[in-house]
Amino acid sequence: MNKEIPYKIYLEENEMPKQWYNVRADMKNKPAPILNPATRKPITVEELTPIFCEELARQELDDTTPYIDIPQEIQDFYRMYRPSPLTRAYCLEKKLDTPAHIYYKFEGNNTSGSHKLNSAIAQAYYAKKQGLKGVTTETGAGQWGTALSMACAYFDLDCQVYMVKVSYEQKPFRREVMRTYGATVTPSPSMLTNVGKKINAEFPGTTGSLGCAISEAVEAATAQEGYRYVLGSVLSQVLLHQTIIGLETKSALDKYGIKADVVIGCAGGGSNLGGLISPFVGEMLRGEADYEIIAVEPASCPSLTRGKYAYDFCDTGKICPLAKMYTLGSGFIPSANHAGGLRYHGMSSIISQLYDDKLISARSVEQTEVFKAAQTFAKVEGILPAPESSHAIKVAIDEALKCKETGEEKNIVFGLTGTGYFDMVAYQKYNDGEMVDYIPTEEDLIKSFATLPQING
Amino acid sequence: MNKEIPYKIYLEENEMPKQWYNVRADMKNKPAPILNPATRKPITVEELTPIFCEELARQELDDTTPYIDIPQEIQDFYRMYRPSPLTRAYCLEKKLDTPAHIYYKFEGNNTSGSHKLNSAIAQAYYAKKQGLKGVTTETGAGQWGTALSMACAYFDLDCQVYMVKVSYEQKPFRREVMRTYGATVTPSPSMLTNVGKKINAEFPGTTGSLGCAISEAVEAATAQEGYRYVLGSVLSQVLLHQTIIGLETKSALDKYGIKADVVIGCAGGGSNLGGLISPFVGEMLRGEADYEIIAVEPASCPSLTRGKYAYDFCDTGKICPLAKMYTLGSGFIPSANHAGGLRYHGMSSIISQLYDDKLISARSVEQTEVFKAAQTFAKVEGILPAPESSHAIKVAIDEALKCKETGEEKNIVFGLTGTGYFDMVAYQKYNDGEMVDYIPTEEDLIKSFATLPQING
Repeated sequence: MNKEIPYKIYLEENEMPKQWYNVRADMKNKPAPILNPATRKPITVEELTPIFCEELARQELDDTTPYIDIPQEIQDFYRMYRPSPLTRAYCLEKKLDTPAHIYYKFEGNNTSGSHKLNSAIAQAYYAKKQGLKGVTTETGAGQWGTALSMACAYFDLDCQVYMVKVSYEQKPFRREVMRTYGATVTPSPSMLTNVGKKINAEFPGTTGSLGCAISEAVEAATAQEGYRYVLGSVLSQVLLHQTIIGLETKSALDKYGIKADVVIGCAGGGSNLGGLISPFVGEMLRGEADYEIIAVEPASCPSLTRGKYAYDFCDTGKICPLAKMYTLGSGFIPSANHAGGLRYHGMSSIISQLYDDKLISARSVEQTEVFKAAQTFAKVEGILPAPESSHAIKVAIDEALKCKETGEEKNIVFGLTGTGYFDMVAYQKYNDGEMVDYIPTEEDLIKSFATLPQING
Repeated sequence: MNKEIPYKIYLEENEMPKQWYNVRADMKNKPAPILNPATRKPITVEELTPIFCEELARQELDDTTPYIDIPQEIQDFYRMYRPSPLTRAYCLEKKLDTPAHIYYKFEGNNTSGSHKLNSAIAQAYYAKKQGLKGVTTETGAGQWGTALSMACAYFDLDCQVYMVKVSYEQKPFRREVMRTYGATVTPSPSMLTNVGKKINAEFPGTTGSLGCAISEAVEAATAQEGYRYVLGSVLSQVLLHQTIIGLETKSALDKYGIKADVVIGCAGGGSNLGGLISPFVGEMLRGEADYEIIAVEPASCPSLTRGKYAYDFCDTGKICPLAKMYTLGSGFIPSANHAGGLRYHGMSSIISQLYDDKLISARSVEQTEVFKAAQTFAKVEGILPAPESSHAIKVAIDEALKCKETGEEKNIVFGLTGTGYFDMVAYQKYNDGEMVDYIPTEEDLIKSFATLPQING
């Protein structure tokens, strides 16, 4: 197995995974069940289906089936932008003068610009298959909304996106990509839903929040015949779809006989990280191999490194099911100065359990050093990374520099989840030297932990 | 040769071209020599070197060497984003219900978002090799400036970009990408050059033009020790570097035993088109094969379909050499309503000669139908195309629909030069139904033809 390793390792189309991997099946300690917000009892598929598509509700609760077939229609769509390249970062290695071998799996090679499309197309497919007319969702910065618009256009499904008003106004380009794909984009809070009207009346001139947009999208889904609500992160179904990332990565490494030592991913809601690491964690759970796995989160939104492992609401509106997760409390709001994404208050219940079981570790990093790493990477590797992805770059560089000190030839693999094309306002701040760091104080956290539900005793 | 054709045909790294192809060597009727603007006589390498890098000046005038080695350093950089995929547009074919087989070569898979990087890295390399400190250039919308910034960052070369003021202000994201790569971006006209000062004094509050930015960049290059001027289109050296597109396309088709029937590219200055078609035209020139080759230009800037074949200035400032080309006159300015790119008044002298020799044909299309084709393509193929590239999409769709009528199974190949991420203002206009078409009147053209130099007798 001593083939020369190319810059980009592409799998052939027939080497693409035909099944997603459900890591929960191999976990001895399963993620705690999600709870019905009304009864506070484990939720059932039947209770989920008024909001979610049936097949997705089943996937959400399935913690025993290890492999789930990827329907042919989804495989066909995947072929338009997958397999994504696993790139050997020869130029970055040279720049750092490190003996480490660095690899990154790039998910930005599609118009939505990120990995979000992997789950969007799956969710749109199941909605179409169920005979629905359309789906509703919320979007903040717009990555998820863009991906879902593309997926719905492909299956000729109506797509209604509630976009946080401040983003709607400040990110017109994202909005226009969605509209070009035929989606209806509504600034939230709107006057189309009861919850939107109520919030507009209570807080005139509000620029909205993700929590409010979720509430509007859920209401819109339940109020319209033939519609369901879809979500782009946090959920176990989303993590399942994202395992296409990790499975391809593993196959590409295997193809060249490369054994990863360290696997690094950025963590917001946890679905891209979970997708990348699942096949590696699976081997650890089955006692077949060992890896160092690092989740990287922003110091300004440190759910893993400073959060509590507790039941919490998934949304600030407190209408969604409760999940046991590492969380800062659903009332946590990152500083307005925070430009690096990954703003979610909690963490995927799967990632949370793996972290609690010490199968993965976590680090928090500050945004100015994240953007510095992004710039270093962009200059030598030619890809302008999304701020989110750059959290992983920062730690990959740190690890490679450690190898320089120790002389170790470690294989470092990280997930490069997307491009920064739509994040230039943040880059401008950095370029102008106006970016500041922010770490929540203990007091801030005590305040946001107070928003945790009583169920935690 | 009956392999199943995958969605994306990737070449292996070792199948990548190691030489560019200089189509001029095979042309019986060579492009007319470019002229020194002072003497109006054919310009020499020596006369070009105060402005251009030496090796690039040599490439500019070399019409006899058929293959030119790609230096290893450039090959290494190419490997970071090349080979680019040749994609079988299965989904578009299905949508159009056509028996035609449609293939597109996608050049947008890099951070600059277009094919411009293919020449930017070559030009930066030769500048570095010559021991220069840096290069200057102009940019309009910003594609070329972005590509050059990336290339200069890689070789640690100073990069000074004069950006048309109106774009500098209206396209802050493009500007910030360049700054992130370490380039200095100056709105033009500036107060840094004599020509800039003069224009600012004459036209207070002017928002600039490409012609003015070229003049500033050329002045800045000659005024600074160790600097040269570089340009991203029109020149024969640029077309040469872009042949990497056509060579890869040809190899990928050959690999699967596919014979192209129609080859389509959009045409602004002509370098991407020339790069795509050169290997095909070469076979025609050598009598080895026959292809239908179509250049597509905007109806609002119709240099091939309505221009004159005459000597003209390459810049509106009239300080650059004169080239014989199809041109509308250097005084031609497309309507402000024109959002589809490809605004250059002339056409590569190589493309012009091939067109005059009837080796290639040309069509002009209006922008609303171009954006309609772009949207159709985006919805089924998942890539949001640049307006420029969408000119080729429009004609590829037209050709595929003709095949539907005739039942012909033609192989249609087109160049998809870039993504539309930074063109959402134009898409918004289209989405809002506010885009209008514009075709210059005969009177408009008579006026702009009057700006042609006297040399044409």
